[in-house]
Amino acid sequence: MPWPQEVNIRDGRFVINSNFTISVTKNSSKRIKVATTKFLRRLSGRTGVFIDNGFAFNSSKIKNPSLAITFNRIGKLEIYEDESYELKVSDTKIYIHANTDLGVIHALETLLQLMTTSHDSYYFPKVTINDKPRFTWRGLMIDVARHFQPVDVLKRNLDAMAAVKLNVFHWHLTDDQGFRIESKSYPKLHELGSDGLYYTQSQIKEVVEYASDRGILVVPEIDVPGHATAILTAYPEIASKDTIYSIERFSGIFNPTLDPTNSKTYEILDSLFGELANLFPGKYIHIGGDENEGKHWDENLKIQKFKKKNNLITNHDLQTYFNLKLEKILAKYGKSIMGWEEIMTNNMTTTALIHSWKGVNENVAAGESLIKAAKKGYNTVLSNGYYIDLMQPVSKHYLVNPIPVNNNLTLKEKQRILGGEATMWTELVTSLNIDSRLWPRTAAIAERFWSDEKITNLESMYKRLEYVSFRLEELGITHLRNRNVILRNITNNQQTESLDVLTKICEPLKIYTRNAGGIEYKTYSPFTLFADACTVDASDSFKFNKSINHFLNDQNSKNTEELIRFFDKWITNYTKFKNLNRNPILTTILPLYKNIASVSKIYKNVLLHKKVTKKQLKEINNLLLELKKPIVDVELAIYEDLNKLFIFFNKKRTNFKI
Amino acid sequence: MPWPQEVNIRDGRFVINSNFTISVTKNSSKRIKVATTKFLRRLSGRTGVFIDNGFAFNSSKIKNPSLAITFNRIGKLEIYEDESYELKVSDTKIYIHANTDLGVIHALETLLQLMTTSHDSYYFPKVTINDKPRFTWRGLMIDVARHFQPVDVLKRNLDAMAAVKLNVFHWHLTDDQGFRIESKSYPKLHELGSDGLYYTQSQIKEVVEYASDRGILVVPEIDVPGHATAILTAYPEIASKDTIYSIERFSGIFNPTLDPTNSKTYEILDSLFGELANLFPGKYIHIGGDENEGKHWDENLKIQKFKKKNNLITNHDLQTYFNLKLEKILAKYGKSIMGWEEIMTNNMTTTALIHSWKGVNENVAAGESLIKAAKKGYNTVLSNGYYIDLMQPVSKHYLVNPIPVNNNLTLKEKQRILGGEATMWTELVTSLNIDSRLWPRTAAIAERFWSDEKITNLESMYKRLEYVSFRLEELGITHLRNRNVILRNITNNQQTESLDVLTKICEPLKIYTRNAGGIEYKTYSPFTLFADACTVDASDSFKFNKSINHFLNDQNSKNTEELIRFFDKWITNYTKFKNLNRNPILTTILPLYKNIASVSKIYKNVLLHKKVTKKQLKEINNLLLELKKPIVDVELAIYEDLNKLFIFFNKKRTNFKI
Repeated sequence: MPWPQEVNIRDGRFVINSNFTISVTKNSSKRIKVATTKFLRRLSGRTGVFIDNGFAFNSSKIKNPSLAITFNRIGKLEIYEDESYELKVSDTKIYIHANTDLGVIHALETLLQLMTTSHDSYYFPKVTINDKPRFTWRGLMIDVARHFQPVDVLKRNLDAMAAVKLNVFHWHLTDDQGFRIESKSYPKLHELGSDGLYYTQSQIKEVVEYASDRGILVVPEIDVPGHATAILTAYPEIASKDTIYSIERFSGIFNPTLDPTNSKTYEILDSLFGELANLFPGKYIHIGGDENEGKHWDENLKIQKFKKKNNLITNHDLQTYFNLKLEKILAKYGKSIMGWEEIMTNNMTTTALIHSWKGVNENVAAGESLIKAAKKGYNTVLSNGYYIDLMQPVSKHYLVNPIPVNNNLTLKEKQRILGGEATMWTELVTSLNIDSRLWPRTAAIAERFWSDEKITNLESMYKRLEYVSFRLEELGITHLRNRNVILRNITNNQQTESLDVLTKICEPLKIYTRNAGGIEYKTYSPFTLFADACTVDASDSFKFNKSINHFLNDQNSKNTEELIRFFDKWITNYTKFKNLNRNPILTTILPLYKNIASVSKIYKNVLLHKKVTKKQLKEINNLLLELKKPIVDVELAIYEDLNKLFIFFNKKRTNFKI
Repeated sequence: MPWPQEVNIRDGRFVINSNFTISVTKNSSKRIKVATTKFLRRLSGRTGVFIDNGFAFNSSKIKNPSLAITFNRIGKLEIYEDESYELKVSDTKIYIHANTDLGVIHALETLLQLMTTSHDSYYFPKVTINDKPRFTWRGLMIDVARHFQPVDVLKRNLDAMAAVKLNVFHWHLTDDQGFRIESKSYPKLHELGSDGLYYTQSQIKEVVEYASDRGILVVPEIDVPGHATAILTAYPEIASKDTIYSIERFSGIFNPTLDPTNSKTYEILDSLFGELANLFPGKYIHIGGDENEGKHWDENLKIQKFKKKNNLITNHDLQTYFNLKLEKILAKYGKSIMGWEEIMTNNMTTTALIHSWKGVNENVAAGESLIKAAKKGYNTVLSNGYYIDLMQPVSKHYLVNPIPVNNNLTLKEKQRILGGEATMWTELVTSLNIDSRLWPRTAAIAERFWSDEKITNLESMYKRLEYVSFRLEELGITHLRNRNVILRNITNNQQTESLDVLTKICEPLKIYTRNAGGIEYKTYSPFTLFADACTVDASDSFKFNKSINHFLNDQNSKNTEELIRFFDKWITNYTKFKNLNRNPILTTILPLYKNIASVSKIYKNVLLHKKVTKKQLKEINNLLLELKKPIVDVELAIYEDLNKLFIFFNKKRTNFKI
């Protein structure tokens, strides 16, 4: 995963043993050194094989390597670069050939995914693979403004990105809630705009180099002119409204906006983009540009006058004026502009890269701007449909094609669609839970960006995703291990088993609904709660869904017993849960668990006795009404299936056949 | 933990709710800002309470804070600094007062440890505490040469150190296996001596500042003239033997040694120590000086001539000559010398700090050099007895008193014993398992360094240690969560429960014996094996020990059933284990588990039937002979207790009373 373009598996295997060696084309690269060394560590770590040689050899120094790597040149981190590779495993030898070292590192990830276990060996199956990406832009955006994410969180996620062949890290560095990058020219930006949580320029360089070693381009974003509270906390003199600013603690869309009529605004941005240009070798700098509603522009007489004078009719025109000034500043530093779709105004130069994000939530057709941009001559990238912070099932994202199937684009226009980007906004996401919000779902999106558009089988995707998910642990990804950390915390270090069972049928509330119900999360609210231990695609809800379908299809004893086992599990574990020493957090979870156990008991009785009474149906109905409601910021992932069973019993009433 | 000097607990509680606020003396410090912010996050994270104010207030800005903090001045990170504090919790208010901000951060950690849970609230008990450390030097050494430990590993461990009031981080930066610090003056040192695994100077500054914010002094160590293979890989021209050097991959004591007669040696070290002096504001620089056997000196004619010419009789004299030159270099940069006990030679100035490490393993009395140093007028620090990499039980380290009880030291001499340092050598330790090797045992050692020497109750220590251990998770310590990561890896993502049960009665081999049995670990060997999932003080072995003692004391049915439950657990889980899809790693573990299950079955039968046959005794004896042997790098922690039971049955033979 992502599934390669061409795969030929044959009988036979290459067995991994301590003599395993790697040779690399004479003119190796730092990227290859890092990748081959890491490859050997990962292979050894998985298999327990004490590999004699911990480093790859220069090809002139070894005669008969296990794995021979050849490539022609060092790849550049820019669009349309050649990332293709060939991988051939025979019984006795493995070959990797690629035009660039980027292809080689992709091939090494594929090879690691091929590693298989039998009772007596770890091996690679005999295979020939020819592979290359469908899209040149395969991105992941991480918002480090809403919640700061330390360097090590980014590094482990860059490793995970590389493992699934993503090649663009879009670094959302500023927003109302924080300015996260050290500025040497305007230090108040990070000093006053970050609560001390920012990346030093050395750290930025460190991350950029780390990404480059993994074949990943870093695109920094400074979000202007809206989403600018943190900037204005440092420099209120460039605000559109004369007021006191302080770092925003809540989530939402806020009014603080830079003043596009003030020359000081451009002075500061010029310096800042100059610093960025030095730190980020890539071509693109993302200037945000989204969600500026212009309220403070409307309230400001000076700005109104400026608009009139310069014949700027709407706020949109004013923002175009602003964006074009930025475009020139960036051009001066040899950079191109990238921005959210709002920057695509009439005068915007077609060298701009348009980032399409709006969809049904914003009352427009999904990815509408993508088509529009391609038609107007812009390169464009799709994020609508890949908002993984919304806590929607992986299947939903997986089936979004970056090039809509029913489109009326010419081939040339299609080619302007460079790919897509998953976006991780972090209003509800800290370094404790970020990995479980990103992974494994991002791996499925990565497949969408890399593999043939015909690869859409959900069952195959789920199966492979589980494997990829587990293997991400070796890169330090914490999505699996941190669940119990949270459960130990909320139980005050008691047995977590019963709660663990509950997390497997509960999912965090979706699409910004977690802020409902009286509680409004701030940046520093606790994200160590039950909902934070739960994830999308709750694992037992899948299994239960299968069992319910089996039963509804055929009420034989096997299918009945299958269901009863689920109900027993929830009944037993509720008892265990009830016996824990209670504390305020556990108390809030109790009603949910109690209702699940109650409905399980009734269903179990109905199944055992093969009949259902009116009273039971009424009780089930009442319990389901409760279970439908969100509670402790989660929803019950098995609710629909419990309800299907109710509908079935309600129809059958008594004496249904088992 | 560490237990305070004076504690007065009374009835009553301060309940934590969303109105919780903190005020700090007008002249706050960065240290206090970091500590109070982190305090609020941790409190909120533990309790799920949405605390309205995420930051502390300046005391002039708030009238009636929940927690009022006052202090007189910013503390210095140097020996004998005042770290005392007073903490008073009433029903409605909490006061912290300290002379320095160092005292305040200790008080905040104490307060967090006091947090308690009831069914309806989280609260602090009413208490008055007056506290100060017994020793001024409470250190932890981490070796980053044998296995490099990334910055985030150090940071989370600095947090953990602060949580148990340790105040010295001794950073073992160089050894045969790696030179881990960027040198601007002699860049080949890190370029050729580190495999690319080193700290940049920015990262060093970052760690030093992070430590300082937590009240921790950082003492860097450059180990010379021995342990120098990595240095000589970069600069063979300053070696005592003219040969080709390359980074050492094995563990042990090696011969490569700097040439103390070569002026270039001092040129390089002078530059290097100059760079260190700029990076580390603390007074001490550790120059190692240990385990130089002088073999290459003996082989080198030029060096022999030099000795004769300068009237240096022994190699020890030559090393003194070398150390005194270093002492002068350090003095030039305003630094004092610290070194392992070998530097305590006749001419060594008494400003040197002597680090006592040898003991019975080195055929001398434990900490002999400590007493000697104190008597000779040196300040000194004890590490013998605190070698936590040896995988010995926490009780062993806990009971080592830095000032031996039977000593003939004067008060003044005693005062020269500044404290102690736990040492984590990392031959077998990577960032995956380091936390489980450090914690929770280091917390008990921290108590030894801080608390009154009369605090030695093991039962109390174990109980409190378990709590501290679990709470370390909130600081990112991975000792608990990473166990299942390893188990998932070796099972290839199957159920880990049965193996988890096994880890609770197995302990990694102790005192360097892991390298026996045919396998010799290299730096890049796999440390992802079963032994790496096991820890010292295996938890079920404690419980089993209690049950065995109960039974041996009284063979009533309750005690018998208690034992049978253990045997059942191992029998059942062995069956589960046996049913896993086998792979080569699981296969190596199988004989161990099988023997445990077999002996459990026999013991269970004996207990059920209340009699033992000769045949059974013979079988048990044979199984115990097997179980006594190390296997897969672990030893069976319940072996002694299984054997006690055998001896008991062997005496009783038949018809023992149950």
